[in-house]
Amino acid sequence: MIEERIKQLGYVIPETPAPLAAYIPCIREGNLVFTAGQLPIVDGKLQYSGKVGAEISTETGMKAAELCLLNCLSVIKSLIDNLDNIEKIIKLTVFVNSADYFTAQPKVANGASELLVNIFGEAGKHVRSAVGVSELPLNAPIEIEMIAKVK
Amino acid sequence: MIEERIKQLGYVIPETPAPLAAYIPCIREGNLVFTAGQLPIVDGKLQYSGKVGAEISTETGMKAAELCLLNCLSVIKSLIDNLDNIEKIIKLTVFVNSADYFTAQPKVANGASELLVNIFGEAGKHVRSAVGVSELPLNAPIEIEMIAKVK
Amino acid sequence: MIEERIKQLGYVIPETPAPLAAYIPCIREGNLVFTAGQLPIVDGKLQYSGKVGAEISTETGMKAAELCLLNCLSVIKSLIDNLDNIEKIIKLTVFVNSADYFTAQPKVANGASELLVNIFGEAGKHVRSAVGVSELPLNAPIEIEMIAKVK
Repeated sequence: MIEERIKQLGYVIPETPAPLAAYIPCIREGNLVFTAGQLPIVDGKLQYSGKVGAEISTETGMKAAELCLLNCLSVIKSLIDNLDNIEKIIKLTVFVNSADYFTAQPKVANGASELLVNIFGEAGKHVRSAVGVSELPLNAPIEIEMIAKVK
Repeated sequence: MIEERIKQLGYVIPETPAPLAAYIPCIREGNLVFTAGQLPIVDGKLQYSGKVGAEISTETGMKAAELCLLNCLSVIKSLIDNLDNIEKIIKLTVFVNSADYFTAQPKVANGASELLVNIFGEAGKHVRSAVGVSELPLNAPIEIEMIAKVK
Repeated sequence: MIEERIKQLGYVIPETPAPLAAYIPCIREGNLVFTAGQLPIVDGKLQYSGKVGAEISTETGMKAAELCLLNCLSVIKSLIDNLDNIEKIIKLTVFVNSADYFTAQPKVANGASELLVNIFGEAGKHVRSAVGVSELPLNAPIEIEMIAKVK
């Protein structure tokens, strides 16, 4: 059902991205799942590169945030098989690779937050921190990690 | 009792700040509550703006950190009604909007950590990460998120 | 056994570093332990200083990440006495003090991640976020915080 909803919204869950290094993409502890930080990668390729507020506009940053979010869902799916087993979303941490003087991190992060609520409804409402960082892996514009509760 | 203690210390819990975007300010999962990242906002207005080590001194940064912390308590109160229901504080993550070469993030974060211990005593002792970031929402000098255990 | 393994690998668990400020180094909640952010400190002295990609090479950054990780284990040991009581590692958050244009945070963070897997085997496999930040306490090149599950 959740995957149908994602399709109806016009999105696709990407292939689960391989970790860039010596770690695993998702772990379960009790009823919580924690994802590794996800980049806007599809089929092994970074889809957006550069700093938001410079090479990347706020609007493009929001699209990149959507992709990070879909990758969070992808790695959770790789662990629990069916996204319908997500009971609720707990938390996002959104790191925005920010140009000097760019302070609209919340707007960029909304790309992910609004998509979550569109997908999951009430169960998608989460707490969030959004901060501007000076560099991200591969020069990605956004990195997002998620904590969710599963059934 | 906790709120009286806060008053005795000369502080006021601000109105619960509205999230800057599409997320909720606080969520409970089991006996843990997670706050969204909080800025030094009172009555909808950012009280301090700029980078610590440049426009904002270390001492002023500590005051801003206190305000972020009070907003963490405010959003928790909005969820659990009474701060006496906090059993203990688990963790703070303190993001300091830092000027180049400013490395006293721990001192700035002490504004929040020391106030927590003054308010809650032993139950206020927490783990903490403090890092310097290049930009924060609205050009706030500090953003703090908290995990606490509730009764 | 875990401590023997650490020795066999040629490493030493440092003395538990004192927090730089008003917080505690490690806290337990249920079966989870959360560490404060750890710097590459041994015997009270920062062993590496500066930004990765400038004063600090990627390889040296990996060594600094190993030290941060050993300090995470040190503070957990100070709380639970015996590292054999770690059931599994859940999560690392790795903050890399990054020079402009340095984007190999994952490689640097591997210093910690690979050591964890070398020490704990399967139980050491964890999720991870690695981000580049503009400043860290004391001008440390790396700060790492850990969540682990204990028996």
